[in-house]
Formats: sequence, C-alpha cells, structure tokens
Amino acid sequence: MRSDVQHFTCRIEDGIARINLDRPERKNPLTFDSYAELRDWFRNLHYSDDVRAVVFTPNGGNFSSGGDVHDIIGPLTGMSMKELLRFTRMTGDLVKAMVNCGKPVISAIDGICAGAGAIIAMASDLRIATPEAKTAFLFTRVGLAGCDMGACAILPRIIGQGRAAELLYTGRAMSAEEGAAWGFYNRVVAADTLEAEATEIARRIAAGPNFAHMMTKTMLAQEWAMSIEQAIEAEAQAQAICMQTEDFTRAYNAFVAKGKPVFEGN
Amino acid sequence: MRSDVQHFTCRIEDGIARINLDRPERKNPLTFDSYAELRDWFRNLHYSDDVRAVVFTPNGGNFSSGGDVHDIIGPLTGMSMKELLRFTRMTGDLVKAMVNCGKPVISAIDGICAGAGAIIAMASDLRIATPEAKTAFLFTRVGLAGCDMGACAILPRIIGQGRAAELLYTGRAMSAEEGAAWGFYNRVVAADTLEAEATEIARRIAAGPNFAHMMTKTMLAQEWAMSIEQAIEAEAQAQAICMQTEDFTRAYNAFVAKGKPVFEGN
Amino acid sequence: MRSDVQHFTCRIEDGIARINLDRPERKNPLTFDSYAELRDWFRNLHYSDDVRAVVFTPNGGNFSSGGDVHDIIGPLTGMSMKELLRFTRMTGDLVKAMVNCGKPVISAIDGICAGAGAIIAMASDLRIATPEAKTAFLFTRVGLAGCDMGACAILPRIIGQGRAAELLYTGRAMSAEEGAAWGFYNRVVAADTLEAEATEIARRIAAGPNFAHMMTKTMLAQEWAMSIEQAIEAEAQAQAICMQTEDFTRAYNAFVAKGKPVFEGN
Repeated sequence: MRSDVQHFTCRIEDGIARINLDRPERKNPLTFDSYAELRDWFRNLHYSDDVRAVVFTPNGGNFSSGGDVHDIIGPLTGMSMKELLRFTRMTGDLVKAMVNCGKPVISAIDGICAGAGAIIAMASDLRIATPEAKTAFLFTRVGLAGCDMGACAILPRIIGQGRAAELLYTGRAMSAEEGAAWGFYNRVVAADTLEAEATEIARRIAAGPNFAHMMTKTMLAQEWAMSIEQAIEAEAQAQAICMQTEDFTRAYNAFVAKGKPVFEGN
Repeated sequence: MRSDVQHFTCRIEDGIARINLDRPERKNPLTFDSYAELRDWFRNLHYSDDVRAVVFTPNGGNFSSGGDVHDIIGPLTGMSMKELLRFTRMTGDLVKAMVNCGKPVISAIDGICAGAGAIIAMASDLRIATPEAKTAFLFTRVGLAGCDMGACAILPRIIGQGRAAELLYTGRAMSAEEGAAWGFYNRVVAADTLEAEATEIARRIAAGPNFAHMMTKTMLAQEWAMSIEQAIEAEAQAQAICMQTEDFTRAYNAFVAKGKPVFEGN
Repeated sequence: MRSDVQHFTCRIEDGIARINLDRPERKNPLTFDSYAELRDWFRNLHYSDDVRAVVFTPNGGNFSSGGDVHDIIGPLTGMSMKELLRFTRMTGDLVKAMVNCGKPVISAIDGICAGAGAIIAMASDLRIATPEAKTAFLFTRVGLAGCDMGACAILPRIIGQGRAAELLYTGRAMSAEEGAAWGFYNRVVAADTLEAEATEIARRIAAGPNFAHMMTKTMLAQEWAMSIEQAIEAEAQAQAICMQTEDFTRAYNAFVAKGKPVFEGN
C-alpha cells in the first residue's frame, strides 16, 4: 500500500495503516479530492497484504467536520442532477470501499465528528472515542436528508432504529456517554491515550488470522439482507474455506504443543 | 388535512397534528371504526403539506389499551377466515400507512400502552414516555401470536432480537426504565411535561427541511431488506434529489450570511 | 419426544425438556456425535406436541467449551474440502433445527460458553446467565473466521453490529454484565437459582398458547430479510390463522367470565 497520498495523511508501520484528514484549523473537512483519494486508497487496500488493519485517527483534537461548506456544499448548490448523482455516488463509493476493503477499520473519535465524518466512523468496524467526542449526522441542518452514504441502513443496525431515527431527524450530536451505552462506541478512553488504545486494538486484531478476519468482515456485510437459512449456508461455505488455511493448522499445532500460534494470514 | 374525525381526536395547529384515541374510562381502546379511520387519516397525510409532524398523545393518563375486548375480540372469535384476514390486513394497513405517511410521528406514552396501542407506539418514528408508561405486546395473553401488525420485524430492530423475543413470548409489560435503556423510548419525562416535550420535539423537527425529512422517513423504511450496496445506491439517488431542493440552497446561503436558515419544505 | 439420547442428557417433565451437554470435566465439549444427535433431536421436536419448551442448561458449572480440540479440530485439519463442507453444514443444520423447531428455547448460561457453545446460546430464543458466565465467540483464536453457524447474521441482531464485530474479531469473552446491558442476556441471576429460574420462565411460556408461540417463533425468523410491507402481510396471514385456534376463543371466554384461560395449544 502506498502512503504517499496527497489529500489526507497516511503512515504505515508494522502492518497498521494510520490515516487522518488534514487541515485541523478547519476541523479536517472532506473535499472532492480527499473523498476520491480515500475511495481509491480503500479500493486498493482490498488487494494489499502488507496492511492488516486501519486506524482512522483525529487530527488536532477533532475527527472531521464533514463535507466542507465552501469547497463542497457551495458548488453542489449549483450542479445539475447528473453532476449531483456523480457526487453522491462517489461519497457512497467511499463507504462501499471501506466495507469491502477486507481489513478491520478502527475509528478513533475525538472532538467534532460530523456529517461525512460521522459516516466514516459509522462505516468502520470498531469505534473508540474520548469523552469529548461529538458525533453528529447533521445533514438535516444543511437542508438535506438523513439518508446519506448508507446511514439509514447502517446506523439502525449499530444503535437501533429508534435512536437512529432521532439522530437523523434532528441532526443533534450524540455524546460519548450515549455512544457507549448505545453500542456506537466499543470503548471510551481519555484523549491522551486514544491513539495508543486504538492502535493497540488494531495490533491485537492484526496479530490474528488475517485471511479469516477478511472473511469475517466480508460476511458481516454480505449477510445483511439474507434469510437466516441463506446466512447459515453462506457461513458453512466461508468457514470451510478458512478451515483449509494454514493458520487453522498453526492454531491446532500450537494448542497441542501447549504454545501460542503465530498467524501468517494464509 | 381534516381534523373533523369521528372515531379519534385530532387537533392541528402550526403544522403539528396532535391525535389521541377516545374513551379514557376504558383506557382508549381501538375499535373497527377507529382502526379504519386512523388508517385513512394517515394515508391522506401522505399527500398533505399542511401537517409536518404528528404527535400521538395519551388521554386521561393512558395511551391505549389496544383492541377492545368486547368490540373487537368477541366478534373476531366468530369470524370466517376471509373475514379474519380482512381484519388483520386492515390493522396491518394502519402500520403501513403510518410508515408511509412521509411525516415524522412522535408517540407520547403514559400509563397503559397495550396490544395494538403498543404497535402504534412501535410504528412511530420517535417515542417519549413517562415513568408510569407500561408498554405490553400482550397478544399471547389473548391466545394469539406475537406476530401482529409487523411486531416480529419491527420490534427487534428497535430493541434487539433477544429482548423482543421475551416481550412477544411472555406478553409482559416493558417498564419505562427498560424502554429507555433498550432504545424503545428516546426519552423519559414527567407526566405533566409529556405532551409539551413531545410537541416541542415535533416543532423542532417540523422547523427543519420537511421534504428532506420525508426522504429520511422513506429510506429508513425502504432500506430494511436491502444489501449494503443497494442501500448506498438508493441513498445516492435520494440525497441527490434533496440537493436540488431550495431548502439546501437556503441552508448554504444562511451559512454564508452567518444566519440561520428558514426552511420551507421545498 | 425421546429422551433416551446417547451423546447429551435429556430429561422431559411436564412438557419441558431440559437438555445439557456431557463431560463436565472437559467443560462439556461438542463432538461430531453430539452435534448430529442434537440436530436430529431438534428436527424431531418440530413434529412433537409433548414438549412445549426447551431449557438448555449448564453441567458442572459450565455451559459448553464448544467443539472439542482433539475430537473435532484435529480431524478437521486433515479433511478435504468436501468433508469440511459436510461438517460446517452439519453444524449450521443444528442452528437451523433450533430456529425451526417451533418451541421456545431458553439457554441457561454459567461459566464457560465458548465457540459452538456460544452459538447454541445465540441461537436460543432467550438467554439467562449467572454473573460468572463467560460467552466467547472465539473462532478467531483457532485461526478461523467469526462467520460460524450464522454468527455474522444473528449476533448483530441481538447486540448490535459494532459490539458483534468486536466480539467476532477479537474472540474475547463477553462478561455477564456486558451481556445484560447489550441485550444478549434477558436476565442475570445467581448460580444456585439459574436452572430454577430458567425452568420457571419455560413453564410460564409453555402455559401460554403454544400453537401461537410456534407462530411467533416462525415469524421472528421468517421476517428476517423481508421488507416492512412483506412482513406486515406475512403477519396478517399468520395472525389470522391463530385467530381460528380454540385458544383464542378460550382466552375470550375466560375474559368474559372474569377468569384465567387454560390454553391447550390448539
């Protein structure tokens, strides 16, 4: 995976990619360029073996303020339907690319996490936050609908239909305490340990069987709209595939030798 | 929207419709007539612009006792299958009409909220309650199944599959405390402020972009059984439509002028 | 229903079947034989009228350690894909059989509840636990994926997508406190009352209208991937069927006579 990106920051170390949005003085807004580059980066991640987990971090005390008012919202108000649909499909493609990248994505939320920033957090696999995290699906505040980049499908599955409806209709911020109680955040930690904690979770997961993790991620998305019977058959096939990996044999051999397995992701 | 209904009470003021069931001395049961009239009223609401949100309120300290034992259950025990299916489809049609009416519905629950009353609460977008609220999906108590008017599909998406199963198998009341912890209630408030709080939430939502709210409501229901990919494409189209509303431009202009947008729902 | 099973323990009394896995000295692991016999037993339950509810209990302070490392995992590491798929389909068939057996299943969890043991708990309708319960979807620890026997579809619907993802990626144990807060456990009780409490819940449910309960269970699974409109129509049909049972009339007659109905499951 390349880390020489232009419109966001990316550092790759020990198989963990840490990425963040830029321009902390404006709370790290998204632009047309950063949307497109993030989408392409996550699409390439699907084919990469050298990155095993992604940590999406804040920058300067905030996660992201979402689509930039001047760089994005202004231009959108003057676009044709064809251009608008090209834009909304591009933003949706970022979520699809995150969901299909095959590697666990952990968002570390601090401060403002709004609009498309909240969507990035939502589209991650795990989320940890600081007590100062304010996540707001505030599309309604700019005259738009809550159905942005998959929010009406994904958010209810994380926090429940009634809570999601409130956040999407009102655009109000979800507090860290609410987010933890509702299952949006897996954990809340102090700001000065946020990145270390998120990276540690990523490291522990990345030390596991990464081919199998890819299958877990695939099926967590794939079974969304299947019947129970279909889901069970799909998992019978997916797990049978994993049972032919060497990581499975490594785990068994380590157990018999009373040791700990060292997984290699194959 | 007409407020001169016969089998329930309806007051429309400032774009907010406040409705409640009648006969507080019997805890506001539903009858064949009130079912049908509510269904028709919510169906008409789909085409109305003068009502922007609905508040479903209690009456005399109770929300609703559900289908009346004498007026509904007695007659049902003597009906043919053709007649029974006509009835269960009519009650289901009330839920469909609420889900498809295009306006946020906020139920304000106090006291008894049972059977079809609990279903009306469940089929609303938001729910606030008093500490005295007792919501019971008590169909099993009258020898019936928990699968009534969509409960086996909708309730698990609000409070989770395990909690929904318990309520539907046992018919026991969910306390206000449980309902808040489980995400059934968005908030619990004292009885003497219940209607004011529910109306205030309705007012705040109704002051937002109502065309966009209609789209949020549509997609919250529409994406129920879609794959993630389908949901994201559906939202790309829905949001692109909203980006051509004047409310979107109004919000942008207000932001640039450092003011607050006044939305008009178009 | 036969209780003379060979690879697990089954006692049937007053219409309640209490079953548990054997070999407490190894924390009640599953074997090829107990998987197959449990699957067949739950399949037969579909046609039985003399068992009205099932309680799955711990044995010697533990629920189950899951698939036995020596009896199952060892052999699996040497199997062909055809043999592996036969195995994963057999384990998935146990979940399908539990979901389709038509009777509420209540798991009573104490101590270790791991791997396939956690899946059995997850595939039950209700779950109660002791403070010592440790439920772990630990497939990742043996080099496998979290998508085992339906976990990626079922677990998110019980505890939410974000919490399910954490448990499935890390394999860590869910504490009793977490399980209660997240809706995995319907209740946490002391170890010395666990079986009595679970049996009491089973008894209360089994005293209800069992034909209707069968329909509730059927629809809780059946509506999984339906649209709201389809689910409401499906329930209109299912409930109309229940309205032709004598239990429905029994309930009405008892109400009119100011008595309590005695349901007979027809």
